[in-house]
Amino acid sequence: MEFILEDITEDEVARRRGVYTPLTDSVRDLVDAVIRTEVGEDALADAQRRIAEIVADLRTEQMDGPYGVRHTRENTGMAWGNAVIGVRNALAPPLDIEHVPDGVRSEFTLGAAYEGPPGQVHGGVCAMLLDHLLGNAASYSSPCYTGTITVRYLRPTPLGALVAQAWVTEQNGRKRIARGTISDAEGVTCEAEGVFIVPRSAVDGPVVRWSEG
Amino acid sequence: MEFILEDITEDEVARRRGVYTPLTDSVRDLVDAVIRTEVGEDALADAQRRIAEIVADLRTEQMDGPYGVRHTRENTGMAWGNAVIGVRNALAPPLDIEHVPDGVRSEFTLGAAYEGPPGQVHGGVCAMLLDHLLGNAASYSSPCYTGTITVRYLRPTPLGALVAQAWVTEQNGRKRIARGTISDAEGVTCEAEGVFIVPRSAVDGPVVRWSEG
Repeated sequence: MEFILEDITEDEVARRRGVYTPLTDSVRDLVDAVIRTEVGEDALADAQRRIAEIVADLRTEQMDGPYGVRHTRENTGMAWGNAVIGVRNALAPPLDIEHVPDGVRSEFTLGAAYEGPPGQVHGGVCAMLLDHLLGNAASYSSPCYTGTITVRYLRPTPLGALVAQAWVTEQNGRKRIARGTISDAEGVTCEAEGVFIVPRSAVDGPVVRWSEG
Repeated sequence: MEFILEDITEDEVARRRGVYTPLTDSVRDLVDAVIRTEVGEDALADAQRRIAEIVADLRTEQMDGPYGVRHTRENTGMAWGNAVIGVRNALAPPLDIEHVPDGVRSEFTLGAAYEGPPGQVHGGVCAMLLDHLLGNAASYSSPCYTGTITVRYLRPTPLGALVAQAWVTEQNGRKRIARGTISDAEGVTCEAEGVFIVPRSAVDGPVVRWSEG
């Protein structure tokens, strides 16, 4: 597994983030619109044709494989293709993760694209977000991999505004245990506990800041 | 939570599926292209403007909230907005779930949009897919909700062609235990065990077939 060094300044990172964020947001809008639209078949076919044209234009120059995980010389993480935090990935809400005194925290809103049961967040989406957030809390000094994670669903999580939090409860050598929750305005809807492992290769490696994708 | 009856024939379900599938596939392509494109800023801005126009056109007529979960009088499930199986949801790979003698099975391919570590599937995506698949295995007679799920990561799951399987190992009243795995060509990469609960209201309800979103 290879992390890519992007030899650019922090200002250039910010500038590129400013270019890709509105583009990806427009794709997030499109994902939502395709789920919820009630226009007729001709309009759907027309939309499809126009989307295919945009795809062809964007693909005239593209990287061979996935985006990978990049970082600058200042060790700012650029996980821009990441499924949970990627600023170039329309599948990601994206989670914007804030470091707080006892761990990490993220406020986000999930719309129609994250639905499982009617009007509720898919339980698998909750598991996905908690896996990422707990891993982020556990990666305070170096990136970690998830060993195991257990998610407990206390009640359905409604689509809409949510808050997730995670914190480390135990550390022992390369093993770390983290816990976390997702909450709506009424309180916790689901909680998780995970065991995370720091890879041997990372123990003496650079500390990369992964708060934002 | 309300399941919506769509009073349409099975032929009409198939016809609509045929209309939305290529449209959603083109959005999946677009998600991938936005992650991987290397075109210049003017071309990105142009793409954004064109996507925003399509969104506006699709939103001229749209449902108020999320898609919900629908079914026909013949109890064919239409979870078309679902985050894992929805044929109208570009976030979903989508999983097409096959019923096999001892449970359920799905073959699928995950590209750049599902990345976590470089070249690997995001661990949270594995958890999301397993949550859905185990829930599907447990829902053989009525829809279930996940109580808890534990995912164990044996090694990284590479992006590309994968197979997931799930089966019920125990059932006791309204409680069911299911297990499952995700595998690449070399074998199992991660495995899960979950406890699923059949809601009281569903015990005597209709049996809806949820194999496809």
